[in-house]
Amino acid sequence: AGIGPEIIVKALKSRRVLARANPVVIGDEGVMAKAAASLGARLVKSRIRPPSGLKPLSTKNTTPARPTKRGSLSMIACIEEAVRMTLSREADAMVTGPICKESAAKAGFSFAGHTEFIAHLTGTKDFVMMLAGTDLTVALVTIHTPLTKVAHLVTGAAVFKTIKITNDAFKRYFIKKPKIAVAGLNPHAGEGGLFGDEEIKAIAPAVRRARRLGMNVTGPIAADTVFYRAAVLKEFDCVIAMYHDQGLGPLKLVHFDKGVNVTLGLPIIRTSVDHGTAYDIAGAGIASAESMIAAIVTAAEMAKKKK
Amino acid sequence: AGIGPEIIVKALKSRRVLARANPVVIGDEGVMAKAAASLGARLVKSRIRPPSGLKPLSTKNTTPARPTKRGSLSMIACIEEAVRMTLSREADAMVTGPICKESAAKAGFSFAGHTEFIAHLTGTKDFVMMLAGTDLTVALVTIHTPLTKVAHLVTGAAVFKTIKITNDAFKRYFIKKPKIAVAGLNPHAGEGGLFGDEEIKAIAPAVRRARRLGMNVTGPIAADTVFYRAAVLKEFDCVIAMYHDQGLGPLKLVHFDKGVNVTLGLPIIRTSVDHGTAYDIAGAGIASAESMIAAIVTAAEMAKKKK
Repeated sequence: AGIGPEIIVKALKSRRVLARANPVVIGDEGVMAKAAASLGARLVKSRIRPPSGLKPLSTKNTTPARPTKRGSLSMIACIEEAVRMTLSREADAMVTGPICKESAAKAGFSFAGHTEFIAHLTGTKDFVMMLAGTDLTVALVTIHTPLTKVAHLVTGAAVFKTIKITNDAFKRYFIKKPKIAVAGLNPHAGEGGLFGDEEIKAIAPAVRRARRLGMNVTGPIAADTVFYRAAVLKEFDCVIAMYHDQGLGPLKLVHFDKGVNVTLGLPIIRTSVDHGTAYDIAGAGIASAESMIAAIVTAAEMAKKKK
Repeated sequence: AGIGPEIIVKALKSRRVLARANPVVIGDEGVMAKAAASLGARLVKSRIRPPSGLKPLSTKNTTPARPTKRGSLSMIACIEEAVRMTLSREADAMVTGPICKESAAKAGFSFAGHTEFIAHLTGTKDFVMMLAGTDLTVALVTIHTPLTKVAHLVTGAAVFKTIKITNDAFKRYFIKKPKIAVAGLNPHAGEGGLFGDEEIKAIAPAVRRARRLGMNVTGPIAADTVFYRAAVLKEFDCVIAMYHDQGLGPLKLVHFDKGVNVTLGLPIIRTSVDHGTAYDIAGAGIASAESMIAAIVTAAEMAKKKK
């Protein structure tokens, strides 16, 4: 019901994608055929694989901007199938499009998002959400946490775990010795304790612990400086932000709808688009496939690096 | 002891400044002469005015990166003199350089920064700190507040007051009908209450109240979208952020050391640089005067608009 099928069709025509990947779409054949037809594109039939055990969706369940329970159940089955294929190494990596969390919840989906669902399916306890772009890459200590609860979750253990998972994933998939910056929690990174003490009590000790283990980590750095130093001065490969808006305000300012969401810490490679279902333009044929293309290219490059 | 004298000398040579303003430096004559000499520049003597009643600073008190009590007392006297001149209309506006808060505090200065001091000197209770750049302008509801205390201060009254002071100042000094965006406090602006309810309880009511009074205000908008919409899509003239890092992370990413700090709600026009004393490069002659030049130009344009 969203822009997912449209951006997949567009991505499957991209040379950047086809030069690096052999993509298989886990989805409904009718939905994909309809999206292709509306864009005047042809789809290679063997590239489409419906999730096993699910009947084709009826027209009623494929109306733009009208999510249905049946559609949500199909979406859930597609994610399960992709996880199964990637865990069993039938696929090298999986890429997800946007999902409608509200509609999924109505269909009985009890996870905050697909990331949490995929972590569950792969038996992963600790994972990190990272948003990657050409100029700025940000990993988060907390994700969908109300602001009043953020400071409580920014413990030394949580910050260290995020640094470690990020560092490990970079070494494995991107850069051997990543330069990682860690943001403070408070204004001016606490100004020596004057504006809050989480930097002294939790963040600085976690950074020291990571440095003792040989990681190239710097911080805590004030959040009104660290993104400039990473994106413009190129001092760091990744910034670890303490909470959602601290990291994603700057990230989406420079990479709106062009970033790639990478889940670190899973036993499989998984990337995702960094935008939603965009019901306001679903079916109009004007959605940008940039984030989907970047997500597939990133997944392919990670798989190559791993091998 | 910081880069202040150097960037003032550089700004006084700028055509952008001299075409719009008749600047007078409230400062120590010896310090200014030394800064000018080290840059090979000449200063018009009549442009320098030492604060009344203060003896010239000795060499001991003008060493780069070595702030002294005597130097801090001189800095405080300079601010007082500039406020007096601007309140009495001897000057149309005042512009401040960076100050060292730590050294000022040791000299008995009991204010968090010069903004709070100037508010005190002008008898101002409600003021707003705004950072303005060519692509993005941000006003703050809370400033130097530890993150754990932010939500408590984001009341309907505080948000409304910030909107109103910002809107009034824009009308008076910049644009007749400013388009103002208001950020949410929580991830996804609370996602309908799922990630926090300050948007429902405080921010949305404040926005409605401002709209009823005819202001062009939109929000709450998620912080990972609003800065992109303002800076790139040009939908808004100003974004009201709920706290320091939410606003200044994005702002300084695009306008690092080039933004202008404007204090709204004062009975006088006051702008400032958006950076610190930069002791690490004090005396080296390499400091950028961009923010100082922009601060003077903005103050001059505000004064012209007022007339």
